[in-house]
Amino acid sequence: MKEEKGQTAPAEGKLGILLPGMGAVATTLIAGVLAVRKGVAQPIGSLAQMGNIRIGKRTANNYPKIKDFVPLANLEDIEFGGWDVYEDNVYQAAVKAGVLEDKLLQTVRPELEALVPMKAAFDKHYVKNLDGTHVKTYTTKYDLAEQVIDDIRTFKATRDCSRLVMVWCGSTEIYHELSDIHRTLAGFEEGLHNNAPNIAPSMIYAYAALKEGVPFVNGAPNLTVDVPALLELAAVTGTPVAGKDFKTGQTLMKTIVAPGISARALGVKGWFSTNILGNRDGLVLDDPDNFRTKEVSKLSVLEDIFHPETNPELYGDMYHKVRINYYPPAGDNKESWDNIDIFGWLGYPMQIKINFLCRDSILAAPLVLDLALFMDLAKRAGMSGIQEWLSFYLKSPQTEPGLRPEHDIFKQLVTLHNTLRHIMGEDPLTDAAPDDYQDAREAF
Amino acid sequence: MKEEKGQTAPAEGKLGILLPGMGAVATTLIAGVLAVRKGVAQPIGSLAQMGNIRIGKRTANNYPKIKDFVPLANLEDIEFGGWDVYEDNVYQAAVKAGVLEDKLLQTVRPELEALVPMKAAFDKHYVKNLDGTHVKTYTTKYDLAEQVIDDIRTFKATRDCSRLVMVWCGSTEIYHELSDIHRTLAGFEEGLHNNAPNIAPSMIYAYAALKEGVPFVNGAPNLTVDVPALLELAAVTGTPVAGKDFKTGQTLMKTIVAPGISARALGVKGWFSTNILGNRDGLVLDDPDNFRTKEVSKLSVLEDIFHPETNPELYGDMYHKVRINYYPPAGDNKESWDNIDIFGWLGYPMQIKINFLCRDSILAAPLVLDLALFMDLAKRAGMSGIQEWLSFYLKSPQTEPGLRPEHDIFKQLVTLHNTLRHIMGEDPLTDAAPDDYQDAREAF
Amino acid sequence: MKEEKGQTAPAEGKLGILLPGMGAVATTLIAGVLAVRKGVAQPIGSLAQMGNIRIGKRTANNYPKIKDFVPLANLEDIEFGGWDVYEDNVYQAAVKAGVLEDKLLQTVRPELEALVPMKAAFDKHYVKNLDGTHVKTYTTKYDLAEQVIDDIRTFKATRDCSRLVMVWCGSTEIYHELSDIHRTLAGFEEGLHNNAPNIAPSMIYAYAALKEGVPFVNGAPNLTVDVPALLELAAVTGTPVAGKDFKTGQTLMKTIVAPGISARALGVKGWFSTNILGNRDGLVLDDPDNFRTKEVSKLSVLEDIFHPETNPELYGDMYHKVRINYYPPAGDNKESWDNIDIFGWLGYPMQIKINFLCRDSILAAPLVLDLALFMDLAKRAGMSGIQEWLSFYLKSPQTEPGLRPEHDIFKQLVTLHNTLRHIMGEDPLTDAAPDDYQDAREAF
Amino acid sequence: MKEEKGQTAPAEGKLGILLPGMGAVATTLIAGVLAVRKGVAQPIGSLAQMGNIRIGKRTANNYPKIKDFVPLANLEDIEFGGWDVYEDNVYQAAVKAGVLEDKLLQTVRPELEALVPMKAAFDKHYVKNLDGTHVKTYTTKYDLAEQVIDDIRTFKATRDCSRLVMVWCGSTEIYHELSDIHRTLAGFEEGLHNNAPNIAPSMIYAYAALKEGVPFVNGAPNLTVDVPALLELAAVTGTPVAGKDFKTGQTLMKTIVAPGISARALGVKGWFSTNILGNRDGLVLDDPDNFRTKEVSKLSVLEDIFHPETNPELYGDMYHKVRINYYPPAGDNKESWDNIDIFGWLGYPMQIKINFLCRDSILAAPLVLDLALFMDLAKRAGMSGIQEWLSFYLKSPQTEPGLRPEHDIFKQLVTLHNTLRHIMGEDPLTDAAPDDYQDAREAF
Repeated sequence: MKEEKGQTAPAEGKLGILLPGMGAVATTLIAGVLAVRKGVAQPIGSLAQMGNIRIGKRTANNYPKIKDFVPLANLEDIEFGGWDVYEDNVYQAAVKAGVLEDKLLQTVRPELEALVPMKAAFDKHYVKNLDGTHVKTYTTKYDLAEQVIDDIRTFKATRDCSRLVMVWCGSTEIYHELSDIHRTLAGFEEGLHNNAPNIAPSMIYAYAALKEGVPFVNGAPNLTVDVPALLELAAVTGTPVAGKDFKTGQTLMKTIVAPGISARALGVKGWFSTNILGNRDGLVLDDPDNFRTKEVSKLSVLEDIFHPETNPELYGDMYHKVRINYYPPAGDNKESWDNIDIFGWLGYPMQIKINFLCRDSILAAPLVLDLALFMDLAKRAGMSGIQEWLSFYLKSPQTEPGLRPEHDIFKQLVTLHNTLRHIMGEDPLTDAAPDDYQDAREAF
Repeated sequence: MKEEKGQTAPAEGKLGILLPGMGAVATTLIAGVLAVRKGVAQPIGSLAQMGNIRIGKRTANNYPKIKDFVPLANLEDIEFGGWDVYEDNVYQAAVKAGVLEDKLLQTVRPELEALVPMKAAFDKHYVKNLDGTHVKTYTTKYDLAEQVIDDIRTFKATRDCSRLVMVWCGSTEIYHELSDIHRTLAGFEEGLHNNAPNIAPSMIYAYAALKEGVPFVNGAPNLTVDVPALLELAAVTGTPVAGKDFKTGQTLMKTIVAPGISARALGVKGWFSTNILGNRDGLVLDDPDNFRTKEVSKLSVLEDIFHPETNPELYGDMYHKVRINYYPPAGDNKESWDNIDIFGWLGYPMQIKINFLCRDSILAAPLVLDLALFMDLAKRAGMSGIQEWLSFYLKSPQTEPGLRPEHDIFKQLVTLHNTLRHIMGEDPLTDAAPDDYQDAREAF
Repeated sequence: MKEEKGQTAPAEGKLGILLPGMGAVATTLIAGVLAVRKGVAQPIGSLAQMGNIRIGKRTANNYPKIKDFVPLANLEDIEFGGWDVYEDNVYQAAVKAGVLEDKLLQTVRPELEALVPMKAAFDKHYVKNLDGTHVKTYTTKYDLAEQVIDDIRTFKATRDCSRLVMVWCGSTEIYHELSDIHRTLAGFEEGLHNNAPNIAPSMIYAYAALKEGVPFVNGAPNLTVDVPALLELAAVTGTPVAGKDFKTGQTLMKTIVAPGISARALGVKGWFSTNILGNRDGLVLDDPDNFRTKEVSKLSVLEDIFHPETNPELYGDMYHKVRINYYPPAGDNKESWDNIDIFGWLGYPMQIKINFLCRDSILAAPLVLDLALFMDLAKRAGMSGIQEWLSFYLKSPQTEPGLRPEHDIFKQLVTLHNTLRHIMGEDPLTDAAPDDYQDAREAF
Repeated sequence: MKEEKGQTAPAEGKLGILLPGMGAVATTLIAGVLAVRKGVAQPIGSLAQMGNIRIGKRTANNYPKIKDFVPLANLEDIEFGGWDVYEDNVYQAAVKAGVLEDKLLQTVRPELEALVPMKAAFDKHYVKNLDGTHVKTYTTKYDLAEQVIDDIRTFKATRDCSRLVMVWCGSTEIYHELSDIHRTLAGFEEGLHNNAPNIAPSMIYAYAALKEGVPFVNGAPNLTVDVPALLELAAVTGTPVAGKDFKTGQTLMKTIVAPGISARALGVKGWFSTNILGNRDGLVLDDPDNFRTKEVSKLSVLEDIFHPETNPELYGDMYHKVRINYYPPAGDNKESWDNIDIFGWLGYPMQIKINFLCRDSILAAPLVLDLALFMDLAKRAGMSGIQEWLSFYLKSPQTEPGLRPEHDIFKQLVTLHNTLRHIMGEDPLTDAAPDDYQDAREAF
């Protein structure tokens, strides 16, 4: 954090939110924000809009709304844009996604119909189960990146935005690991010119955004901006980045329940997680290469919460298995079932079974909104590079090299709150030198 | 907290743990501690024995075991005693409880057989479904209290204990509210002499303990020590107290999951909780008057976590229902099923269903151990009165008058940790003046 | 069965279906039948409309639809009428019930608005949690019965119906047992004149229907037509009757799963059933007296399937508990959770847990339709008295005195099928004298 | 069925039960039968031992035990033998399997220790995840078959058995389809001489058994005896055969619940089934080729119950997915979770979720016993070839060519009962010409 306290620039003018991938999540976000503006719905699930933050001592009883505490962009001042491999306008795409009911969509239909995606930067190699038709043609990937940069500039000018953020809402790309081409900005740009196969479409978007100083969030588990080359670019242009993978559904539940088990020093013998989902996301993940990317993201969670290396008696033999199943009858109503084999006093076994009947896009949409608003705040506060304080929203939080990500959602929340307090020049909650119990309790 | 840092008296000599109620929980605790001493089992679920605590900055990577950090009584130095309405020795009672398997019990059988409960202070009015036969006769309740005091003194002397703690492990008494007789110590003692019907057996034990300066914990939801008269006595004798109701099973899960829902600003429309249990506890709770006591304890949890008064859109209309069902086939294998109706973005409904196949006594036993060890520590550290920092273990934490109890298990854990750091003269974790993100992350 | 084979009268003219109680179930039925007529929905769950029946040998491969095999009233020829304690028309009542979505209701709105309930015969003593305002005034219960008879005649005439059936769709009345007044028709009629308190409103409807020769079905667990006095009347007028309590939700699942457990000679140690429901039915059942009626109906099911008297090792110690909880967030979406403790080889325990997320009225509506159609068929086929072959639809099947009801849904279905075959003069499926395996397999 | 009624040969002398594969299922069976003989446990789950059968009219109230009705081998007269790829004796193997508790095993330990498996006919190609060490060496597969025949003869002689049956309790072999070599006995025998790779070990055992006139049951989903060549051999030697795959766990539940859904004409949109299991069976099925065999077996069940071709509106679009997951923490405690998406009246969706916490070998062991006893009965009754009446026990019942297997467990049970009645010269239950309701009800 390079900012001086209280020196955050105000949220003047309009904020453009650019979304590569305008499927279920993006259309649910856009229709929702428009409906909220019209007063026909509420932005439930958005901490930035609905949540409170405690300021000062407990006895001060001061819990302002976060949106009243920090200078976030107002929902009235948001413009949406994006890219997709299908040419449907946002109303059509929302109907196909089948997340929101017709009644609500009708209240904002004209606005949604007016929003048409730009042609996507697409490469079928990275998403085998999709057939994109509304895609850019290009000679080199560098040329492709320049087209995206042009899109960004045009959007900003025509929509009269003072600031932009970009949030990847596209599908999960196939698994690939860091390779040499991703190590330096110079090497990466050479790769763009040479059409290096290891440069995925999501990287093109990230490159374009960072080049323009537009904060970039990666909502999928792809490598994308989690490579030295693009972090180098973020540093050069002083741009915030965050990733990876919106924390919704089963993993959300996991990072809630696992800290609870750990708090009580209960052991875990096994954790079996299965998912059924039927939307486009599920179709993409039906391909083993794309699933691999997701699996790596989902598996890391427990180890980082349980610390088996310091608690081998409790977590040293934990068996963790994650399955995702494409099951069309579920539609967007993702459902998870977890069986957790724990053990307690003297090693006696017990079980927890959790069935979460959730809705993928309903859980994800407010995360996109919050991430966009907070990234814009970070930019105005002069914070660049990886915004680890937004780990709260992410399944596989991007961290500085060598740092272990924090997955415990309650610790993530404390960090988020304290960062907001810090930005506003408020004292973080301290617990120094309590001289009676009440003060000790003030610790959080 | 009256102590000076680092001035905690060492844990020299033997610690006697006195248990009113030697049924499933108490016998599981005793057999377990003896088995742990013999090296045939581990005290899983005991934070005091198995848990770690972070000291210093995250980068210091210093996570000692709690038992190595604070001067707790050693398991080798514990003596057990107690009272029960049945005359079975602890081995017989453990066999009847059916919690631990024969193989484990055999390893400590002689020691268990040597432990015989003292005659109980009992009043069938308070527990209609039990027929106690191994009970004290008395003329006045004051006389009864003196008998208990004699028991305490005799136990301490014959077992050569330097310190004692008492933990109520008896059944839930019927619901009764605070009445005049409970308001002052003088009035209470007069009531003892007059056989006031509002003085429950658990209050007799508490009175006797506090009179002797023995820390007292109430593991059931009864009023017991949560009355001004007995707190007055605790202040007089400088004795720590804590209560009420061990946090196990369904409520444990609730205080894990509810903070997670709240963290994400998701709304709650309804929460339905049902339990099936088949042990003596279930039999007692099959009586509506006894269930009422438990219900009040279990219902309060959610309100204190969700704060509907500050979040009316999210939690203002929450419908919360708790049911407990006596179901003999379950035995000690208590099982809970929760259906949680939540709503997210734009009000769309989702559901979480949790089936917890737990074991009542396996979850409760390590709580008794931890509470005993920490209460003994508190006493040696000079802390008297309500030990709110032990809320972590309790379903309905006793607080100073006018204070709202904290139910969020993660906040409870931070308080517990910080109190331990404080006792040891360690700086609580601070997050003052971070000048980069890493420091901000140090906040907890 | 008094009919001669093949002598069933044809279904000429219109069939009037009269429904005492026009709440969620009745309005869902009516709106549904109208929607089916318009071709905008299908009568799923109606065996009479969607089901097939095998005729002849398996190798004949002849599986006509039931509605093509027996002469049922055509959906086009049905007229609906009824009574309710609220004056809402059927459209308004359907909107309040909240079962069907607006889109579907709009397709049949004018027809539904045209249907207005007649004033109900009501007695708050029998349904404490309802406040009826749209009710008949009367001097004696005989007078009240005559008003209902008038209603029936007027309906038949004004709607130009050739036949009528009546199906009780009202709430569950409080528990009361058979008393002297219910033993003879003469005594019952005297009771009507004397305003005997033991004559419940549902009995008034049944009396009126039977007096007019209108087949009567009791869809709730009330005593109603399950008394000698009214069966005497049914015999006098040659009218079919059936009851009690539509088999939906949890009990439906039970009579499916229990026969399966029994088939495999697996033992049952306990069966715990809980329900959450939030509609008017749930509100009524929140009163212990009304719940008692339902509980008796629900509890009988397992004993009659498992026959503990002939299988004491397997079912002699079964503990069966049923709970119903009023939980408004559920609305009409009734939900059940069953925990079944079974045991297998050498007594080893296993568990089955079933969570049925059902919709009360969606399950009940097609049962009302089928019962109405089959009762009309029975009447035309000359069958009077208790129609035990319709046990398939009922939670607590009414039987001839001394006969044990059959609860196994698969045996109930065979009986239903064979009765239909019998009515049509078809050979029931026989398995006499197989001379090779194939023929043996022809047995069903 | 070639037998004349009542001409079944009596069960004189000892019956040898030969088990290829002496893992969890086989050892649980053997230890269990021995424990039952000693009177320390009961053969729960065995229809042959615990089940009743109705004889005559319902009013006759005649429900003898099946074992008292048909002349089955007495448990006292059974000798066990078998083959395994590990050399552990049955006690050691039972301990490793971890199904039965030590206390029970000790009661029959000497008998179990005396039972040592013969060296197995093994081919790692068919079971990649097992490393057999206790295996026969051979030059040709014909030579291998002759070794097995020698084993059979030696066992029969040394154990003094009058009759034998063989039940395959080995692991699931990899998926392979019928090929030319399996079409004729002559071709098959030539293949044995030529070491044809398509001849799996299970076929060698089946060949050896049938050659010796020993009834053979296939408890796994392998092809094994479901090939023309071996059926030809069965016909030549007049030997009964049955298969495939013991119906336990999830599929058992499916064939109970699916007939119930179908009975009520409810539609099915999707059925998702997942399993977790941790025993040797799970390890073997972790290999995709072996899982393929199992998957085919498990998937066929629903189609044959729902008949989508005659009920396209209800079952035409059903999506059925089955997953099996190797999850070591489960051990032998197999667990299944099913999510069933059904729809009712007007197409409204509902869900059923079933969590079956079962024990694989506890469910399978009594099936092996029943199949062995009934196959021995069939042989004595002169019945040869495919015993389709035993479909009740099998996940993928083997049928005569061109016949559709019956999966509905309730229809399977009727067939089993009627076949037993037929064998004993009893009239099957008939329902011809009912002239009143009671008779109609006599149909089953």
